[in-house]
Amino acid sequence: MIIVLKKGVEEVKIQEITERLSEVGFKVHLSQGVEKTIIGAVGDRSRLKGLDLEALSWVEKVVPILAPYKLVSREFHPTDTIIKVGNLEIGGSQIHIMAGPCSVESRSQILETAHAVREAGATILRGGAFKPRTSPYAFQGLEEEGLKFLAEAREETGLAVTTEVVDVRDVELVAYYTDILQIGARNMQNFNLLKEVAKTNKPILLKRGPSATLEEWMLAAEYILDGGNDQVMFCERGIRTFENYTRNTLDLSMVPALHSLSHLPVIVDPSHGTGRWQLVSPMAKAAIAAGADGLIVEVHPQPEKALSDGKQSLTLPNFQKMMAELDKIAQAVDRPFAEGGDR
Amino acid sequence: MIIVLKKGVEEVKIQEITERLSEVGFKVHLSQGVEKTIIGAVGDRSRLKGLDLEALSWVEKVVPILAPYKLVSREFHPTDTIIKVGNLEIGGSQIHIMAGPCSVESRSQILETAHAVREAGATILRGGAFKPRTSPYAFQGLEEEGLKFLAEAREETGLAVTTEVVDVRDVELVAYYTDILQIGARNMQNFNLLKEVAKTNKPILLKRGPSATLEEWMLAAEYILDGGNDQVMFCERGIRTFENYTRNTLDLSMVPALHSLSHLPVIVDPSHGTGRWQLVSPMAKAAIAAGADGLIVEVHPQPEKALSDGKQSLTLPNFQKMMAELDKIAQAVDRPFAEGGDR
Amino acid sequence: MIIVLKKGVEEVKIQEITERLSEVGFKVHLSQGVEKTIIGAVGDRSRLKGLDLEALSWVEKVVPILAPYKLVSREFHPTDTIIKVGNLEIGGSQIHIMAGPCSVESRSQILETAHAVREAGATILRGGAFKPRTSPYAFQGLEEEGLKFLAEAREETGLAVTTEVVDVRDVELVAYYTDILQIGARNMQNFNLLKEVAKTNKPILLKRGPSATLEEWMLAAEYILDGGNDQVMFCERGIRTFENYTRNTLDLSMVPALHSLSHLPVIVDPSHGTGRWQLVSPMAKAAIAAGADGLIVEVHPQPEKALSDGKQSLTLPNFQKMMAELDKIAQAVDRPFAEGGDR
Amino acid sequence: MIIVLKKGVEEVKIQEITERLSEVGFKVHLSQGVEKTIIGAVGDRSRLKGLDLEALSWVEKVVPILAPYKLVSREFHPTDTIIKVGNLEIGGSQIHIMAGPCSVESRSQILETAHAVREAGATILRGGAFKPRTSPYAFQGLEEEGLKFLAEAREETGLAVTTEVVDVRDVELVAYYTDILQIGARNMQNFNLLKEVAKTNKPILLKRGPSATLEEWMLAAEYILDGGNDQVMFCERGIRTFENYTRNTLDLSMVPALHSLSHLPVIVDPSHGTGRWQLVSPMAKAAIAAGADGLIVEVHPQPEKALSDGKQSLTLPNFQKMMAELDKIAQAVDRPFAEGGDR
Repeated sequence: MIIVLKKGVEEVKIQEITERLSEVGFKVHLSQGVEKTIIGAVGDRSRLKGLDLEALSWVEKVVPILAPYKLVSREFHPTDTIIKVGNLEIGGSQIHIMAGPCSVESRSQILETAHAVREAGATILRGGAFKPRTSPYAFQGLEEEGLKFLAEAREETGLAVTTEVVDVRDVELVAYYTDILQIGARNMQNFNLLKEVAKTNKPILLKRGPSATLEEWMLAAEYILDGGNDQVMFCERGIRTFENYTRNTLDLSMVPALHSLSHLPVIVDPSHGTGRWQLVSPMAKAAIAAGADGLIVEVHPQPEKALSDGKQSLTLPNFQKMMAELDKIAQAVDRPFAEGGDR
Repeated sequence: MIIVLKKGVEEVKIQEITERLSEVGFKVHLSQGVEKTIIGAVGDRSRLKGLDLEALSWVEKVVPILAPYKLVSREFHPTDTIIKVGNLEIGGSQIHIMAGPCSVESRSQILETAHAVREAGATILRGGAFKPRTSPYAFQGLEEEGLKFLAEAREETGLAVTTEVVDVRDVELVAYYTDILQIGARNMQNFNLLKEVAKTNKPILLKRGPSATLEEWMLAAEYILDGGNDQVMFCERGIRTFENYTRNTLDLSMVPALHSLSHLPVIVDPSHGTGRWQLVSPMAKAAIAAGADGLIVEVHPQPEKALSDGKQSLTLPNFQKMMAELDKIAQAVDRPFAEGGDR
Repeated sequence: MIIVLKKGVEEVKIQEITERLSEVGFKVHLSQGVEKTIIGAVGDRSRLKGLDLEALSWVEKVVPILAPYKLVSREFHPTDTIIKVGNLEIGGSQIHIMAGPCSVESRSQILETAHAVREAGATILRGGAFKPRTSPYAFQGLEEEGLKFLAEAREETGLAVTTEVVDVRDVELVAYYTDILQIGARNMQNFNLLKEVAKTNKPILLKRGPSATLEEWMLAAEYILDGGNDQVMFCERGIRTFENYTRNTLDLSMVPALHSLSHLPVIVDPSHGTGRWQLVSPMAKAAIAAGADGLIVEVHPQPEKALSDGKQSLTLPNFQKMMAELDKIAQAVDRPFAEGGDR
Repeated sequence: MIIVLKKGVEEVKIQEITERLSEVGFKVHLSQGVEKTIIGAVGDRSRLKGLDLEALSWVEKVVPILAPYKLVSREFHPTDTIIKVGNLEIGGSQIHIMAGPCSVESRSQILETAHAVREAGATILRGGAFKPRTSPYAFQGLEEEGLKFLAEAREETGLAVTTEVVDVRDVELVAYYTDILQIGARNMQNFNLLKEVAKTNKPILLKRGPSATLEEWMLAAEYILDGGNDQVMFCERGIRTFENYTRNTLDLSMVPALHSLSHLPVIVDPSHGTGRWQLVSPMAKAAIAAGADGLIVEVHPQPEKALSDGKQSLTLPNFQKMMAELDKIAQAVDRPFAEGGDR
């Protein structure tokens, strides 16, 4: 940690602080330039509890040197984490496509979609049963009934199933029915929910908050790993910016950035990331080219009748078409699609 | 609602959609310009469930005309809502100052602060017992013990008490000990938490999410009113922007904007809004000048020893000094400070 | 154009405005819903000069229906524009790579780089002679001497040459020495500069402003087309967001968005778009996969000795390696690299 | 400057870099923690030209300690700069109001406005003659004729006059007719324009770019001071964020931030800062309460007939009303309005 002092700070203050830092175990080095005095302090920052240096009026700024996360970092865990979902492996050499409707709306809708996406090459079925909606007047999901339809689709098709959990009280229920628990973007910093899903033995798909920095996102994952569950995938789904032609701005640079800083797999959601179905296929291809370990894509048999997100959902034929194009990109980066198979 | 069609759409499509809209009760008007065909549809948009017009490939865009919120809007409820907290009235002619530490750290810390802020003119004590922290390794709050200290400070000083609730399972507990429930910025769209606090009969302080638009914020309040609790205050606490000299960008224009669109009171948090204690007093004055109904300010007896947010906390003497300056602004806008008094 | 009126507006106002609109040639339709009165007005909005409807106190909002640009739009010009630079064609079936140092620093630096990038498959050489720098104390470029070095490199290698012009007074000079004029991000809305480059017969590479919306960017291009030069390429180079792990957030969704809205080619700059050389290759691949017509990439023989942007520059071997990987993606999207050749 | 090295970097590299830094005059300190090696280097960073440490593959990051600006900083120049415009003093104890239309549209419009704003207490007349407009089809200003009308209004009323200059070729002309040169938001980083206005002896009003950080803004001012003109005022006019209820997000925290970091005066533009005339008066009051040295406000005799920015312009009566309210705030912060008077 580097502590930059304000110009003209008294000697006695400097002595006081260096002694204090030494006491709690820091190796301290004082450097007095013509314009600034800076203190370098090497040690474990957690020992500083109860000493907020930035609150001191004669401190200009404190620059941390060590990253605040540990378990999620590649420095701590150099090899890639591979997440097992039944016999699927996410984060290995193969690419996985998760596809399905925004919301589970009916038994027939989810079954029809499941068969079609499996046919086209997806290995995991997505679908929301508990829907966090901006307006209280919007469709809020089928809840447990939706989970049952998902489970039935799994039985019929052999696809693994992923769905979002939004409430600490539902974690057990959702974990019972599904294979991967999604933490939605709005809940990325719902820390109690993170602690709760950490207690399950299910893989977690952790979406990036719409205004979360890379560091905050990694710290959210750190909560889950720290809670005992190291089966976490990051999911980039776009951030909020001034540009509103697209629903969000899909930040694909996070794919190589996360691969360099962390050992955990990275999934991309081009549907929420763009908000327009016409942009989904190009951005899906871009995501694979950038090194994503998988995609999660909204697909609906009749998008114009969808109860949510119709505007960004692919029809079944469009999904099929996209998969054919994606296949070429996957091959160009030497990462074939995973075989759909029985879980 | 205005539906703008793509150039060259077939007549049959137009007929189909106008018929469909008429059937569900819309008054439809077709307008064919040289370049665009647009359909005006007057009616209740909720009848559209199961018809996502924007998912149709020949629709360019859909422009809603009516606001998606109702209960929070001034059109629906023209007179100002005044929120009663004991014998205090928030949203009326007087201004209320909520002050106290970021976290409740000990009995003595909260009692010392409570006496000092009351002395200086605050009417409400703030202090966090459940702390949502970016890092799992940061201080997470004293939990119920903290609530008890707050309640004791209330008994001793007659101040009302506000604290944040972060978990649906704690709502009852927090409501038992405190007078105003805070929904933190990161939970603004934790819809189940909104539904849960709506069931209490306590006033709610609803902080703006760091990347929430005005409309999303009003819709979050709508969840609480729709759930049966109309005692909601908005709290502007800064938004996330590219500027990082400040922790957040305090968006004071929301004060007059909300007063024009809604009947609910507006509180401002200059501590989180700036992240630097040196900026708190100027921005507090600005907030009152802009028409805020109150402030919530972080104050700590020894900010450099604070377990959280020391950098943005005022010392007790600085708080006192700020209150004296604020008093002049309050008088200049004809809104005197509320009397501290027994609740 | 749709004009939404405030609740309770007087009949006489409505009549006044509809008559006024009819007079200047609009086809007007009045629609009175239970909650809102709206006026649809079909016609040429430029006739409204001297009538700012949004300034009327009883108008709630005005929603434009037509796009404010014309010449750049695909509706106006359905087929792709192909830009000729000597015998190169940008925007056609082949992909072009522009590469070179941020700044031209010396004759030997630019010649060495030119040969190396040509060898690796680039067809266009980039290099800055006039450098817009955030600090007045930073290296400001070699100016005309730099242009001469670029021209010499062109003679030696047969590469076309592109460089930025930052001042209306230098347009002629820069046009004399180079093949493509770059408008830098900070000058995207320097309208007089746009008007000046429109007068040359050189192709223009128009970078997106760091906080420019898609619509503003298209309107900046419209200035150039309106000024008589239709040889414009868009260049996405990242936008400013809250995320600062990367220098900018590269918004690849603009590639398919622009291809759908406009007929002009789209180039991507992964160097400024990320600010870290480690991220350049993955994002370059992503850009091609998303459909970009070309890339502009910073390459330097010794990035650690670069006078600007060393952090985001590829070494010559790394550029070569990237080109080999890009080649596979280009083939996967059926768009081979252009042949380097004599201009 | 602090140089953080990657884990596992070879000793020889470290030795190489510390020697190199020592050679160019840095005082170097090496600090080897368990996890990171960091090098502290005290000295003049400009000596590093030709050594971009961040481009070295074994350097993790470089943290600058000194601010990159000097002349604009309060450390360099501790006392407030007071700018003289005729007999007016900006930045002293009095507050100045600049008011007038967005564009000069006609002789009568500017004269009527000038008399009215002077009557209400303004000391400086604003009005645009050269208009940078997003669309090439929008009104582009009366140019020199507009400047003449402004000069005439000055003669008639004794108000000082400010107008924007957008082109390096017009600087002399604009300086001839007016008292304060405005650099518009889009030109904040038009460095050649900054260099050109630095050569005049006129005060400069430097608007913040819509996506400029505080540091970039100060560096833009540094260009002007470095060019020999130290009569610079900052003007906060809102930044671009995701919120689009307002045209921009007015960042009033910049007022106290700039006052702490710089000696130059700070003006606030609540008209562009909000884009809605209804919000102008509350935000003007807030700006004064936050410590602004003056305001620049758009006023138009008939906003609904304005050729630009009618939506955010006050009518003459509304301006008068605002001035009366502002007066109370100005008194509350002990900074009376400046007397209108002869320049």
